[in-house]
Amino acid sequence: MTTTGDTLALFTERIGLIKSYEEALAVLYWDLRTGAPRKGMDVRSEAIGNLSGQMFKLSTAPELGEWLTALEEPATYEGLSEINRRLVKETRKEYDRSVKIPPKLYQEYVVLTSQAESMWEEAKRNSDYASFEPYLDKIITFTNQFIDLWGVKGTRYDTLLDMYEPGMTTEQLDRVFGGLREKLVPLSASIAASPHQPETGFLAQTYAKEAQKKFSLFILEQMGFDFAAGRLDESAHPFATGLNPGDVRITTRYLENDVTSALFGTIHEGGHALYEQNISKDLVGTTLATGTSMGIHESQSRFWENVIGRSMSFWNRYYGDLQRHFPGQLDVPVEDFYRATNVVEPSLIRIEADELTYNLHIIIRYEIEKQIFNQGVKAAELPALWNAKYKEYLGIEPSNDGEGVLQDVHWSGGAFGYFPSYSLGNMYAAQFTDTLERELPNFWELVGKGDLLPIKQWLSEKIYQYGKLRTPSELIEGITGKPLDPEYLVQYLKKKYTGIYKL
Amino acid sequence: MTTTGDTLALFTERIGLIKSYEEALAVLYWDLRTGAPRKGMDVRSEAIGNLSGQMFKLSTAPELGEWLTALEEPATYEGLSEINRRLVKETRKEYDRSVKIPPKLYQEYVVLTSQAESMWEEAKRNSDYASFEPYLDKIITFTNQFIDLWGVKGTRYDTLLDMYEPGMTTEQLDRVFGGLREKLVPLSASIAASPHQPETGFLAQTYAKEAQKKFSLFILEQMGFDFAAGRLDESAHPFATGLNPGDVRITTRYLENDVTSALFGTIHEGGHALYEQNISKDLVGTTLATGTSMGIHESQSRFWENVIGRSMSFWNRYYGDLQRHFPGQLDVPVEDFYRATNVVEPSLIRIEADELTYNLHIIIRYEIEKQIFNQGVKAAELPALWNAKYKEYLGIEPSNDGEGVLQDVHWSGGAFGYFPSYSLGNMYAAQFTDTLERELPNFWELVGKGDLLPIKQWLSEKIYQYGKLRTPSELIEGITGKPLDPEYLVQYLKKKYTGIYKL
Repeated sequence: MTTTGDTLALFTERIGLIKSYEEALAVLYWDLRTGAPRKGMDVRSEAIGNLSGQMFKLSTAPELGEWLTALEEPATYEGLSEINRRLVKETRKEYDRSVKIPPKLYQEYVVLTSQAESMWEEAKRNSDYASFEPYLDKIITFTNQFIDLWGVKGTRYDTLLDMYEPGMTTEQLDRVFGGLREKLVPLSASIAASPHQPETGFLAQTYAKEAQKKFSLFILEQMGFDFAAGRLDESAHPFATGLNPGDVRITTRYLENDVTSALFGTIHEGGHALYEQNISKDLVGTTLATGTSMGIHESQSRFWENVIGRSMSFWNRYYGDLQRHFPGQLDVPVEDFYRATNVVEPSLIRIEADELTYNLHIIIRYEIEKQIFNQGVKAAELPALWNAKYKEYLGIEPSNDGEGVLQDVHWSGGAFGYFPSYSLGNMYAAQFTDTLERELPNFWELVGKGDLLPIKQWLSEKIYQYGKLRTPSELIEGITGKPLDPEYLVQYLKKKYTGIYKL
Repeated sequence: MTTTGDTLALFTERIGLIKSYEEALAVLYWDLRTGAPRKGMDVRSEAIGNLSGQMFKLSTAPELGEWLTALEEPATYEGLSEINRRLVKETRKEYDRSVKIPPKLYQEYVVLTSQAESMWEEAKRNSDYASFEPYLDKIITFTNQFIDLWGVKGTRYDTLLDMYEPGMTTEQLDRVFGGLREKLVPLSASIAASPHQPETGFLAQTYAKEAQKKFSLFILEQMGFDFAAGRLDESAHPFATGLNPGDVRITTRYLENDVTSALFGTIHEGGHALYEQNISKDLVGTTLATGTSMGIHESQSRFWENVIGRSMSFWNRYYGDLQRHFPGQLDVPVEDFYRATNVVEPSLIRIEADELTYNLHIIIRYEIEKQIFNQGVKAAELPALWNAKYKEYLGIEPSNDGEGVLQDVHWSGGAFGYFPSYSLGNMYAAQFTDTLERELPNFWELVGKGDLLPIKQWLSEKIYQYGKLRTPSELIEGITGKPLDPEYLVQYLKKKYTGIYKL
């Protein structure tokens, strides 16, 4: 006879095994991106493919389905610990999602997206949408098949959103993005019309890489990044990866002609890292030991980068240190540096956008993805749609598709539903900040003194420690007492830019 | 109906899968030893344990046994390619070895050796053999059980030797080590008695780490190390690991008070790396894509470190470069530098020993291991045995067990039969050199000009490209026309030290 204890032991052993594959794969990816020798790449890709396949087998094995069913029996389920209950729920969700896709179909899809990514790279370089369109068309068809197999609650696009932001719906996003767009479009326009544009010319200098590196390490240490549980490396595209809470790795990229790139990039990835480093020890070794959603994760990177890192209080404390790292180079007053690193300007490229217009880039992508899956808009229609929306929301239009609809990698990999996370991050961050300011009344004073640890502590207690134990909506409502409301971000941006642009 | 083609496809797919696990595990180990954050170590160890377990399952699965049996059918086997025939042979050997050990017994052994390694560390630190003895005793008992399960051909110790040096026997080692000992003990004594001892005082200086690093990279490049297919990092204990021929990683350790440590260490690991980088592309993705044995691998590290790297010709070419890396520091003539880096002196610690007496350290260990498994000598008897042999062969005695029987990690991990590989490496290297000198008549001239690539090329053609496709004895007999003969090493050492010590 199998007892609940036996089943639970088998189940948690399997979870531990899956987590070990995740850790190994994360190390392999980290290694590939931080200095693996070029000539070993092909064999490495094969190893990654093989191990991913093995992990997929273990994650979709019939016995796992049986253990889940047994543990979901109400009498059994109620007897489980909080962690195990959540683990059962999470695993069930992933399991159902995975087993519903026939392996052969999934295999075809993997091949397609890997081809599509190379095609996209070339198409972007040549601004040649026509060469990419058939691939995108097929990816959309596959994704629609997946939606059918997974099943639809709400709208078809909701099924995609739920992968990155559990529980998020088109209905809710329409409301929050609608509110945001309505306020940000005119705010952006009045900033553009302000006669008080910041001076940025002094930033154009050459900044020694070694000094940039030193300052990056210094700021991470100030944020409370634990170097015994993480490391900072370099890569072409900065990223953060949490192998386990005792090993969280971030990367940055040093540009000699731009001191702000590595600086704000490091703080951004450092925010992701603080989240992963401070997940409760109780979750280690389970699949719950990671951030709860893309949106909440992004709220932390953006909180540290923008709310803290681009604030006047922060630079009142750290500008002197920055100056000392680059002797004789930054001789303008701190106020000028602050204003120069907070310029708002409509632009065509999302990843280069400022804190305000960034959200408009996201809203455009959201609206287009929604039209693809809820209204059957075709790949062929996207460039025109894209350009029209840029014209409408940002007042500018791409001169070619390379700087337009082809600029992001996401769609070539089938990652529909991911983009909203970035703006959700901004909105969550603003709403958390509002609560934080009330619960730590000397918040800005702490920032101004460089006493950042109590802030990290507050975030750890409220958010980080829980990993995936709480859902995004449980977090936002539990902490702030309200569901997600775009008004916090609007007020934050209004206040900030009214000061900078003297609106 | 299953055809040979189907079976072969399933078999090679499984081999590819096993190889992927090997690659992933090698990256995880490399990462652990080159900078993984301390606090992530426990979780990492668990991940390594889990993936190793998965690999073991795949390597011992009943279906693999069935495929092997089918492919071993004479009619089928004869139709296989040379690579597949060797792959079947190698896999059969590993398979039989693994399935003969009951999983429960192996599990107990793994736990024991992991405890024993910690115990050994402490025992060595405290020179406290008594605390380690019971663990060693148990490991010997387990190993004897394994020998019984694996089966004995020749003597019991042969079963262990075969794991590291396929085909090697006690009978052969008695002969070669006997010949070696007989000649080296008196040679070592006459060197000690020579009035012409090299002056080494000038080496005792502080050498900037950055310059040491630069020179290490320069020498690797001169050796033909391919930096697009490998990298050099730092670690506490230098090592080489070939993930695949396109990704071979070595490490070194820079000591500020000793310029020779990283220098010869890098050349040594570089020799291992040249082997792995130059394995034929045809073997990539199979378990044959690695060195054929520990002894042959060690022959390459030692050939590059000692035969080339500690030769007068080499320093005639590179001493000027070394001097330029440390301006004003090495102002003695090249001859003095050459003699100082070739001092022979009986010592207690194997890993610090010179090129000549090193072999005596190995012979002592070989003789003791043989006595343990062929004559039933007990763990309790080892310290006395050890000290007596050091007295007899090297003329010195440890003052405590920390610098005596406890100095090496090998036995705590159950690696009996490994030690001979080091001296086999020296003997193989000397015998290969003899052939090399005849087949590349301008060999020493090339070294003297720093034209090392034809040497690498010769070794690649004769040894490296084959990976595990040829056995050690096939290599040594195929290349030199003779079985292993210790006389080559004896003659090499005699000639070298007669010059240095004016014997």
